[in-house]
This record gives sequence, C-alpha cells and structure tokens, in this order.
Amino acid sequence: MSSIITVETADVRFPTSVNLDGSDAMNPDPDYSAAYLRLVTDAGDEGHGFVFTIGRGNDVQLAGVRAVAQLLVGESVEPLLADLGATWRRFVYDSQLRWLGPEKGVIHMAIGAVITALWDLRAKREGKPLWDLLAGLSPEELVSLVDFRYLSDALTETEALDILRRAEPGRQERRQWLLEHGYPAYTTTPGWLGYDDAKLLRLCHEAVAEGFAHIKLKVGGNRADDIRRLRLAREAVGPDVTIAVDANQRWDVAEAIDWMSELAPFDIAWIEEPTSPDDVLGHATIARALHPMPVATGEHLANRVLTKQLLQARGASVLQIDATRVAGVNENIANLLLAAKFGTPVCPHAGGVGLCEAVQHLAFFDLIAVSGSVEGRRIEFVDHLHEHFVTPVEVHSGRYWAPLAPGAGTEMHPDSIRRHTVPGAP
Amino acid sequence: MSSIITVETADVRFPTSVNLDGSDAMNPDPDYSAAYLRLVTDAGDEGHGFVFTIGRGNDVQLAGVRAVAQLLVGESVEPLLADLGATWRRFVYDSQLRWLGPEKGVIHMAIGAVITALWDLRAKREGKPLWDLLAGLSPEELVSLVDFRYLSDALTETEALDILRRAEPGRQERRQWLLEHGYPAYTTTPGWLGYDDAKLLRLCHEAVAEGFAHIKLKVGGNRADDIRRLRLAREAVGPDVTIAVDANQRWDVAEAIDWMSELAPFDIAWIEEPTSPDDVLGHATIARALHPMPVATGEHLANRVLTKQLLQARGASVLQIDATRVAGVNENIANLLLAAKFGTPVCPHAGGVGLCEAVQHLAFFDLIAVSGSVEGRRIEFVDHLHEHFVTPVEVHSGRYWAPLAPGAGTEMHPDSIRRHTVPGAP
Repeated sequence: MSSIITVETADVRFPTSVNLDGSDAMNPDPDYSAAYLRLVTDAGDEGHGFVFTIGRGNDVQLAGVRAVAQLLVGESVEPLLADLGATWRRFVYDSQLRWLGPEKGVIHMAIGAVITALWDLRAKREGKPLWDLLAGLSPEELVSLVDFRYLSDALTETEALDILRRAEPGRQERRQWLLEHGYPAYTTTPGWLGYDDAKLLRLCHEAVAEGFAHIKLKVGGNRADDIRRLRLAREAVGPDVTIAVDANQRWDVAEAIDWMSELAPFDIAWIEEPTSPDDVLGHATIARALHPMPVATGEHLANRVLTKQLLQARGASVLQIDATRVAGVNENIANLLLAAKFGTPVCPHAGGVGLCEAVQHLAFFDLIAVSGSVEGRRIEFVDHLHEHFVTPVEVHSGRYWAPLAPGAGTEMHPDSIRRHTVPGAP
Repeated sequence: MSSIITVETADVRFPTSVNLDGSDAMNPDPDYSAAYLRLVTDAGDEGHGFVFTIGRGNDVQLAGVRAVAQLLVGESVEPLLADLGATWRRFVYDSQLRWLGPEKGVIHMAIGAVITALWDLRAKREGKPLWDLLAGLSPEELVSLVDFRYLSDALTETEALDILRRAEPGRQERRQWLLEHGYPAYTTTPGWLGYDDAKLLRLCHEAVAEGFAHIKLKVGGNRADDIRRLRLAREAVGPDVTIAVDANQRWDVAEAIDWMSELAPFDIAWIEEPTSPDDVLGHATIARALHPMPVATGEHLANRVLTKQLLQARGASVLQIDATRVAGVNENIANLLLAAKFGTPVCPHAGGVGLCEAVQHLAFFDLIAVSGSVEGRRIEFVDHLHEHFVTPVEVHSGRYWAPLAPGAGTEMHPDSIRRHTVPGAP
C-alpha cells in the first residue's frame, strides 16, 4: 500500500494575448493558463492534472483545486484507484463543497483536475496510456465509473452496459486500426478572429499542405468580415476541405438564426456555440431553424445533466467534449455514453494548454470501446504550447497519432512549470 | 468624487452542523458560512456583500470574491454606482474571468457579492433601504440594469419596459400597503430532516402559534419517514396551514414522479427541487406528471438563462430566487422580470446566513414595481443567525416587515465577523 504524501499546485500562465492567439468573439485576449496539480505518493510515483483557464482567475481555480486535492493527503492510493467511481462520487457529493456548484464552474472543474491526476497515476502504474487503459476495462468496470444520477430518464446503467457490450467484439481490430491510421484531426489555427487576412490565407494554405481535411474559423464579430473571411478561406482550401465556424456564444437565438442563414451558402460544416452554452432550448430552436446545417457545442457544458438535455432536445448534432470543463475522465465517459445512446458524433474541443494532450485519450477510447466509429468525428487541433508537455501530441498528415507513453497526457515539464508559474497570484 | 480604497474579506463560518440545523436529503451537515466582503471608500462610507456557502469551500468562494473585488481598488465610486448595469457587464463579461463559469458557480456568485456590496453602498448614500431605492427607479433605469443577452427569445427590453410601466401607477399605494401589512412569510424551521418527531411537532405548533400560514418540510431521505412526518405535521398545523415539501435535488425524474405521487394525498403546496437544478427538461416532465401539484425551484439556478428556460418549458410554477446564487441584484431583477412575463409567482429562498436579510428587498421591490402582487407569494423564513446582522429581519405574525434602515441588509456586525472568522482557511 502507498499513500499520497504531497499535493503541489502551480499557477501557470502563458502570455498568449500578445499575439492574439486564441482570440474570438467573446475572448478577445486570452492568456492561456493552467491551474496545475501534482500528486506525489510515498512509493515515489506521481499523478498530474490541471484545469485550463484563460488568465485572470487562474488563482481562483487553483484555490478550488487545492481545496479538493487536500482531502487526499495521507490517503491510501490503492483503494482510491481501484474504485475511481466511488472516488468521483466522494468529491462530487461532498456535502459542503457541492454547494459551490452544484456540479458546475470552479469547484466542478477542480474535481476534474484531481480525478484526472488520479487517472494519470493509475495509468502510469499500469504502464499504459490512458486511452489503452480505459479501452481495456470491462463494460461492468466502465459503468461503475459513471454516476447515473440525473441521467436515468435518458440513459440507464443497463442501456450503458448494452452499448459497451455491443462494442466489445471489435475492440482489438479498432485498436490496431487506430495505431496504424491515426484519428482525424481538424485545425483552428488559421481562424482566430484577431488574425488579419494575409495571416488567415497563409495559415489556410499551410493547413491544406499539412493534410487537414477540415478547418474552423471564428465568426460573430462582424458579419461582413465573416463573409469576406469565409470566401477567402474557401478559395484557399478548395472545395474538398470542410469549413466549420465558431461563434463562441456571441448571439441570442434569433440573431444566431439570422446571421448563420446568411453564411449558409458557404457550405458550413457546423456552427459551433451559437449562443449561451446553458441554453438547451435556444440551441434546439436554432438547430431546427438552420437544419440541415449542423449545430455543435459542448466545451462549456457544465456537466452531464446539460449534455443529456442538449441531446434529448436535439440541440446539437455534434458534441464537443472538453477535457477540463467537467469533473474529469469519469464524467466524460458519461458524456461519451450519452452521445452513443443518441447517435451523436463526438468531436472533442481542444487547444488551450494541454487540452489536445488530454482529450485525445477520450476520443481514442470512444473509437475502440464506445461508439466504435470515426465517422463524422475529428479532434480539434491548435498548434500552441505542446512543447511544455512531457508527452506532446503527435499530429501530422491531418491526424492524431495515439501515444504509447503511460499516463493521461497531463504532465508538464518541471522546467516549463517553473518558468511560467506566477508567484503569489494574481 | 470618492474612491474605493480598501477591500476587506472574511471567511465567516458558523458550526451549525452540531445541531443538524439546515439538514436535508443532500446537505446532511452544513456549517452555514459567508464569504464576506467590505468595500471602504475614502469618503468613509462602506458597502457590504457576501456569498452564502455551507462550510468547506468557503475559502474557494472567498478567493473568487477577492479576484473580482480587487478590480475595484482605486476606482471612482460615483460612475460605478451611477451605471450599475455597465458595472455588472464589466464583471460578467470580463474576457478572462468569464471562462471560469461562464456565468455560473464560484465566479458568478463572487460577482454577485461585489455587485450587492455596491448596491449596499449606493442605498446607504441615498439614505434608503434597497427595496425602496429600487422601487423608486424609473422603468428606463431599471431595464438599464438588466443584461438582455440570451433573454430576447423570451423577454425583450421593450417587453420588460411594458411590464414595469404597467406597474407604475400603483407603486405608492403598494408601498404603503407593504409598510402597514407586511409581506407573507413561511417557515422551514420545523422541517429539517435531522430533527426527531418530537422536535418536528413542537416546532409545528410554535409555527402556527407565531402566525405562519405555510410551512415546509424536507423530504427525500426515506419514503416511510416522509409519510409519517407529513401526517404528524398535518395533524399539528390543522387543515388551514399549507405544507410544502423540499427534496433538495435528491431524485431522478421517474423517482420524483413516483415518490411525490405517493405524497400527493397530503395536499402538498409545492414540491421543491425534485431533481437537478440544471435539468430544465426533467422539471418539465415532472411538472406535467404531477399536475396540478406545483413544482418549485430556483435557489440553485445558476443564472438568468436557466431561469428563462425553466419558465419557457413550464418546469416550475413557483420561482425561488436566491440572493447570493446569481450575479447579484441586477440578475435578480432579470429573474423577477422573467417571472412577471410568464405570470409565475416568486417565493424567494432564504435561511442560511443573511439570505432572509438580503432577499426580502427583492420581494418588496417585486411587489411595488414589477409583479404588483403578493398573491401566491411568500418569503422563506428560518430563524437562525439573524443576530449577526446590523439590520436583522423583522418577522412576526407570519410576515416580513419592511426595514427602513438604509442599505441592502447585507452588513454583519464587526464583532460577529471577528468572532466567527476562520483565519488562514482551511
């Protein structure tokens, strides 16, 4: 038996706003940041996790991570890792912490960082990358990780078991296929709102040259600009590359419908985050009005209850899970199962700090053990800040290539942490 | 012109779990707490605000309050107070802090504490209690306080203006009526789940003797216990006192319908929080199935977008706003306007630390200037911790009596703060 003896946290911030990397209609000047956590055991091994934020407030997020992680100091590791479903419930249903959400915002994301750090530790102990660890668990073990409270009107434990059992036979073949063919990626690098037309064009050409079959542009700042940028991008990438657009929650319902109806002639692969992520009914109205243009959302869905409703209401036909918005790996397994139940493809949100490194594991697991498919599925890719991670993503030829290194992909280089930590924030 | 020169915060906690005060099906052992804020100006006056929490995590909430309040140090007070709508938008749309929600959880509640502290300061400067200040503003000033983003498919600024203008004529008469007759209250004091039958009975008799026409019991722990307690309570209070029940988010949709169908014979005034506060569609299903039993919720609705949907979907027929769950006074004005639009009575949630003191102002304002009615409306009352406030609520004869002291009711005694502050939490 081993124990968790140290919980170290760091307020890591990168000054990305200088170049307007990551700029969009609602987030004009992000400084990509991580509220970072390292758990150390007396056996000498470690688990790493983090919450991605965009600058100010990273210290608040870190206070949340500390409040949750401190509950683990001195605890035996093996029982925590052997029943990560119970560990998840212990944090999410903490009778006092729960008030701060419930199940949303700072405290929920903090639980996510801690849960993911525990998964990182477990994957390293088992000598497997997280995707391979998850894809090797039995359907019974997988459902034990999921909290079905509030889900049962859309997905029962029995239905989840059925989904996982149906996908069991082909696991080995799909694992092999993934290792040989990689997983489709798409790039948002060309499309940040703060980039000028010349940079947009150059990056579009580069994206095609690098083998991407799908790109995404930010929209919602100015309608004439959107039309001009879409026309330029379409000319640059040609007719065979699909183009999605992302409004980052900019609009009300009627405005979203009106604005996107005008952009429809550009053959939009999906309109992402047209309005508030909390507005399930609004998304449903927009999706009906814009049909057959797909609506995508998910990176800001606070928890599995929002995901459930979005799918029930047919508010989105593409679900974009995020690695650090919800309460970690377990809740994203719930999200993947909900998507499978409703037949909705999952195209994970990534970018930021380490989101690509973390979320790829969930997509690979989904392919092997849940949905069993890559059809209509792509992982977002943004080529920023990967060098700070011990296992940076490998993306080339327009595809993610599955890592073989043990862990959840969430470990940063100690030197990167040291150089970018803000002391005594904010 | 004056400036904000000091921002002081305190981690205030009361050991209420010792007596199981406030115990319910999801919160068995709360330690009622406040993440407390005091703004001081160089003119020597002050504004006070807080977020209510239930113990662990109060330090995380306080980190959020500090992050927001620090943005005000050195700022001129008069422009902030003269356009509190702009001040609200400045915080809620802070391009980096917003990521921590968006508009939910710790960061959103923190904004609420700061906004409310500014309202407290403004009310004190104008020499009025907050309810009287708000009820004296013109319809145009009131709508300028509300952010209609994400609301316009249910409530436009024009519709809000119409609602407020329709209520203008009778303002003076209703103000006088309020001062003479008070505002209906109901009590949750008898019904905490941790109290034994003898204590329940004694407190039911006391409630009737004190003039309450409505009480509330916690349910959802054990069905046989609920039935026994409801029977005892009904016998104690007689047929003329209405009894509501509160499940504190305990159930899934089907379980809520099943459980409450069994309790229906007890003439339930409303079933409160039957399931996740995020589950708008679930509430709508429950409300349809249990009709005509009213469904109530609201104290955990994270923001006005959730309120909007709940009312659109007819998921609740009683809306229970909370003084510190959303981003302060401004967002609760939005909630009151939404309720007025949908014809839904507002019965504010209170109790905790200072929630009664704070939320009464919003109910009085609603009566005078928004809905213009007390029909079907009551403010929750729990007789705990009022002695710590400079202007404790005055509740007798089953009614709240409107305070005349200037301010928002959010100021605690310095001595109470000092005696109950946790240093260097936790």
